[in-house]
Amino acid sequence: MEHVRPLPTYLAQRYHGWKATTFAENRAWYKRLADEGQRPRAMVISCCDSRVNVTSIFGADQGEFFIHRNIANLVPPYEPDGNQHGTSAAVEFAVTSLKVAHLIILGHSSCGGVAGCYDMCSGHAPDLEEKSSFVGRWMDLLRPGFERLPAEADETTRRRALEHEAVNVSLENLMTFPFVRSAVENGSLSLHGLWTDIGEGQLYSLGISGEGFAAV
Amino acid sequence: MEHVRPLPTYLAQRYHGWKATTFAENRAWYKRLADEGQRPRAMVISCCDSRVNVTSIFGADQGEFFIHRNIANLVPPYEPDGNQHGTSAAVEFAVTSLKVAHLIILGHSSCGGVAGCYDMCSGHAPDLEEKSSFVGRWMDLLRPGFERLPAEADETTRRRALEHEAVNVSLENLMTFPFVRSAVENGSLSLHGLWTDIGEGQLYSLGISGEGFAAV
Amino acid sequence: MEHVRPLPTYLAQRYHGWKATTFAENRAWYKRLADEGQRPRAMVISCCDSRVNVTSIFGADQGEFFIHRNIANLVPPYEPDGNQHGTSAAVEFAVTSLKVAHLIILGHSSCGGVAGCYDMCSGHAPDLEEKSSFVGRWMDLLRPGFERLPAEADETTRRRALEHEAVNVSLENLMTFPFVRSAVENGSLSLHGLWTDIGEGQLYSLGISGEGFAAV
Amino acid sequence: MEHVRPLPTYLAQRYHGWKATTFAENRAWYKRLADEGQRPRAMVISCCDSRVNVTSIFGADQGEFFIHRNIANLVPPYEPDGNQHGTSAAVEFAVTSLKVAHLIILGHSSCGGVAGCYDMCSGHAPDLEEKSSFVGRWMDLLRPGFERLPAEADETTRRRALEHEAVNVSLENLMTFPFVRSAVENGSLSLHGLWTDIGEGQLYSLGISGEGFAAV
Repeated sequence: MEHVRPLPTYLAQRYHGWKATTFAENRAWYKRLADEGQRPRAMVISCCDSRVNVTSIFGADQGEFFIHRNIANLVPPYEPDGNQHGTSAAVEFAVTSLKVAHLIILGHSSCGGVAGCYDMCSGHAPDLEEKSSFVGRWMDLLRPGFERLPAEADETTRRRALEHEAVNVSLENLMTFPFVRSAVENGSLSLHGLWTDIGEGQLYSLGISGEGFAAV
Repeated sequence: MEHVRPLPTYLAQRYHGWKATTFAENRAWYKRLADEGQRPRAMVISCCDSRVNVTSIFGADQGEFFIHRNIANLVPPYEPDGNQHGTSAAVEFAVTSLKVAHLIILGHSSCGGVAGCYDMCSGHAPDLEEKSSFVGRWMDLLRPGFERLPAEADETTRRRALEHEAVNVSLENLMTFPFVRSAVENGSLSLHGLWTDIGEGQLYSLGISGEGFAAV
Repeated sequence: MEHVRPLPTYLAQRYHGWKATTFAENRAWYKRLADEGQRPRAMVISCCDSRVNVTSIFGADQGEFFIHRNIANLVPPYEPDGNQHGTSAAVEFAVTSLKVAHLIILGHSSCGGVAGCYDMCSGHAPDLEEKSSFVGRWMDLLRPGFERLPAEADETTRRRALEHEAVNVSLENLMTFPFVRSAVENGSLSLHGLWTDIGEGQLYSLGISGEGFAAV
Repeated sequence: MEHVRPLPTYLAQRYHGWKATTFAENRAWYKRLADEGQRPRAMVISCCDSRVNVTSIFGADQGEFFIHRNIANLVPPYEPDGNQHGTSAAVEFAVTSLKVAHLIILGHSSCGGVAGCYDMCSGHAPDLEEKSSFVGRWMDLLRPGFERLPAEADETTRRRALEHEAVNVSLENLMTFPFVRSAVENGSLSLHGLWTDIGEGQLYSLGISGEGFAAV
């Protein structure tokens, strides 16, 4: 592996600082997590975006959230075709092995993946339509959301609505997984949809009242 | 969406605490991140495991790391077949759009996904071999790593070695992406392989000396 | 330039070591910083004192902090008189061009500049009162801080309080710059005051609770 | 001080990490530095630019370099007019009180201040020519350097040459300070001029051979 480089020095230094403080103060908890395995209460599916850290927002500690992060926090529909589905594998593991009680989809403002999908579906991003574009093919998952955007609204409204749809579509697709539907229906799993405005630090949740997202 | 529930109260409460403290103290930074977009220095690919939080280990804040998390921190080989590849999409976005300078694969001890792969490849997990097993098909990515485990070693050693292979295989597969190889070769991207022992809090890095992982 | 000598050998040797290690490991990041320019999150104004290195205390790397260092970490009041004001130029560049989110004033214990100011204001340093004393004229900036020291306190307390005043006065003067005030008021900039005890390695921050500095 | 905010959490965490490692391992040295005061071997004048950290390049530790940082690493000419001159104060303190043995001017590539000066002197930056522009008035110091740029050279060459001039002009101005000249002439102080290419990590020094900068 001639292309692999050692950890940059500044990260090594910060790691040593973490080990001497956070780790040292929580050594017993880390030992127990290592000995007994994880037992997370919730799975969170959020975006890879560097500005969205769910553990920070919820003051979560090691062992609390099983976290899958992909572009635009998307879940594909159930498709047991023998191919590789990383997101479906994560959901399967969380629900059937770890038996998490909550499954949270967390969307966010100014999402680059959603913006690319909007441009692509509007015919303004031919590069994303290429068969070889991984981002384009991944964002195909959100096309059903684009189809139901309010036609008469202005573009800013429609782009924001598509970010909300990334949460809605994922929640809908989750219910196509037999083991998710069954866990939801027998009361051992609940689904949640969140969306956060990065600049305002405001979190919105589905299911608080009527339809749509409401401020937490 | 009759199946969606509002955010659990304890999480809503913690969120309000975060907004009144961490967010309030960093409001200007969040505003800038929202206005100007992210510019992360590194992409990190780590496991969904709730016990591994890379932002904690490295004292990283909002905006610093673009993070993809999947089962066993795996990267598939380059396969531009028009199907959905969430991991490949994340790598493509990070390298070609965000132009991150570092791409870090972070593995860890007692990884449930790697353990399942070991059992499956040893013929002791027939359920994972089913076509419909998302976890099984995902962990097929690690089969090349299983093939080269030291045959004569004891099982504990071999299981640990397979966790290391999850990092090695991902680094090898990364180099099959033309845009990764080209960025590495022109010096604008460097690859890093890490593995952390959860109970000991010890981080190991490839590339420090000779072959294999060495303590940071 | 007959008076200029080449770099001392011991520094040249250390530089070659840095280039072969830290630089080599971070080559991609330095390349990106050179190609795309800096985008620091914070400006830090600290003392020239050789014992105070803010990048060390905060594990900061290249690109993170825009740093101005002068005697006693002072900021003069806004005075657009067409003369040369190096500190005001640095603040202007950081706030209006780089649009940093945080502006941190970092004071420290046993500050030689502050001690000189104390002696001068107490009438015990006639040399600093000379018109030609650059240090004396620079430390005039801290005279308003000396005026409000607690009259009844002992000298050790008063000297320490004057070090704190060097932070307070700078923060007050910052708010006289129209572009600083406007950025603070619209939420795109926040001001922070720190003071560090060199021997104890203890950092204190304003704004944690009530008035004055509290241990971080 | 209602505008002052406490230290951002992520910086507080990194600080605690530093205190538990770097500080704890060097406690005796910090104590001695606090008890006996600093005794730096060299003064360094470098730019505020976040990409240039002289302590990193030279592996310098606490107590080693007395560091003044301003826009474009400029030193004004000797002007004992009773006004505030922060840079002159720092030089005076380093040479007459600390009696440093070396005084190093460190310039760098893609300097924003130098670029602004080039534009201003070429008549393309009217905002920098305003009396109220602190950056513009500060960069006036470099006008003599602009005047002697090679007229026939292309713009890239001339811009680079102006970055070199920022070092040359500062070294020339240093010699107008009586206490600097006297220390240089009696052999107790030597002056050094450096310039670093950020992307290449290459350091250049004056005085190695003939005129101009040569690779270290």
